[in-house]
Amino acid sequence: MERLRVIKVGGGVIENETSLALFLDKAAAMDGLKIVVHGGGRTATDVASALGIKTTMIDGRRVTDKATLDVVTMVYGGLLNKKIVAGLQARGVNALGMTGADLGSIISDRRPVRDGVDYGFVGDVRSVKVPALESLLNQGIVPVFAALTYDGKGSLLNTNADTVAAEIAKALALSFDTSLDFYFEMDGVLANPSDSKSVVSRIDEAVFKAMVADGRISGGMIPKLENAFDALRKGVGKVFVSATEVCL
Amino acid sequence: MERLRVIKVGGGVIENETSLALFLDKAAAMDGLKIVVHGGGRTATDVASALGIKTTMIDGRRVTDKATLDVVTMVYGGLLNKKIVAGLQARGVNALGMTGADLGSIISDRRPVRDGVDYGFVGDVRSVKVPALESLLNQGIVPVFAALTYDGKGSLLNTNADTVAAEIAKALALSFDTSLDFYFEMDGVLANPSDSKSVVSRIDEAVFKAMVADGRISGGMIPKLENAFDALRKGVGKVFVSATEVCL
Repeated sequence: MERLRVIKVGGGVIENETSLALFLDKAAAMDGLKIVVHGGGRTATDVASALGIKTTMIDGRRVTDKATLDVVTMVYGGLLNKKIVAGLQARGVNALGMTGADLGSIISDRRPVRDGVDYGFVGDVRSVKVPALESLLNQGIVPVFAALTYDGKGSLLNTNADTVAAEIAKALALSFDTSLDFYFEMDGVLANPSDSKSVVSRIDEAVFKAMVADGRISGGMIPKLENAFDALRKGVGKVFVSATEVCL
Repeated sequence: MERLRVIKVGGGVIENETSLALFLDKAAAMDGLKIVVHGGGRTATDVASALGIKTTMIDGRRVTDKATLDVVTMVYGGLLNKKIVAGLQARGVNALGMTGADLGSIISDRRPVRDGVDYGFVGDVRSVKVPALESLLNQGIVPVFAALTYDGKGSLLNTNADTVAAEIAKALALSFDTSLDFYFEMDGVLANPSDSKSVVSRIDEAVFKAMVADGRISGGMIPKLENAFDALRKGVGKVFVSATEVCL
């Protein structure tokens, strides 16, 4: 099977001109088929604030009312997506910016209210349209996905970018020798959170659970690694969190 | 040759929920291959204003500094583009939102300073990548273009949406039996500007010149009709300005 890399690039990387350029150089130099997935939460929060729209986060996830959906559609789907697309095109990569609405490529269900928490226009991925993505990849096109999915009824839904990347990788794992790379501003999972040089080279589920239990892994790294293990169980060949390889 | 409709939809149509829904219904019902092109200047001006960015227009064209380029990328490339794409998908149309950077589809040259006027990040179309668009159309995909083109060097450029539509129609006129529709909030060219029922059924260049001379055609309708005549001279089969057919 042909090799495919699904590369999730973190907001902290693409929201800084220097680290964005470095990422684009690396992505352009990678061989094989590629799909890029990105969010851009800090910029969304900044633009919302400038527009007088209050940002509410619950457990690190953005509550997305109608005004906030418009902001993330502007920021993820417009500003940041086109910056990445134009930057890849300038490096000879035939990039195509997309959301889940484009080609109806990622369908999601609006998250129901649970325990009194309503995330608003937030979607949990139901399906990825594999033939549409296979066709683009086989034409030498590099899809660049903003972390926005589609409810199938005319509305975009905001979806966590790590999750979008993992769902795409899992859906394509039957068609390609698929790897999933979480590319972000840290060097990997750290054995000692206060020592940026203590990057763990490999992490399995037992080590993950132990590191969560003793507090060395916390916050957004927990769902990121859960996404990683889930992807491996569903057929994705390799998963990296920066330099750390995630293994079952 | 297969029939292709290039449909430019005006900001006044897509920036109103009712007229947008009516347009999407009509566009979905049209047979044959289709490409949609849109701008959204009023929303861009509103968002710029809310962000404290001053809008400057010269001869009806937006001066596009870096901050304004970001705004139009958010509004045209994100908010409005994805609203049209999601609305078409909900109507069974396999829409794909694009700018000129996506697939490197529309390359433009940054407009040089002339007579002391610097429009900033504004592009004049140099070329349309015909094979990329033919390939999408032949796959049953309906490209939806925001009025943003690409300088080939990593930057988007703001380009008048009527011009983008006319350039796409001209470029594809050799491959398809191409028509160009300017769909906007007026019923067509009016014989009497104060009577909305006085729609001219056909307009040729002699009538156009006479109506410009006596002031019945003015403002943005002049470049729109100039684009229309130019498209006809370059091989586009039919051009409509709402219900008015434009003829050489």
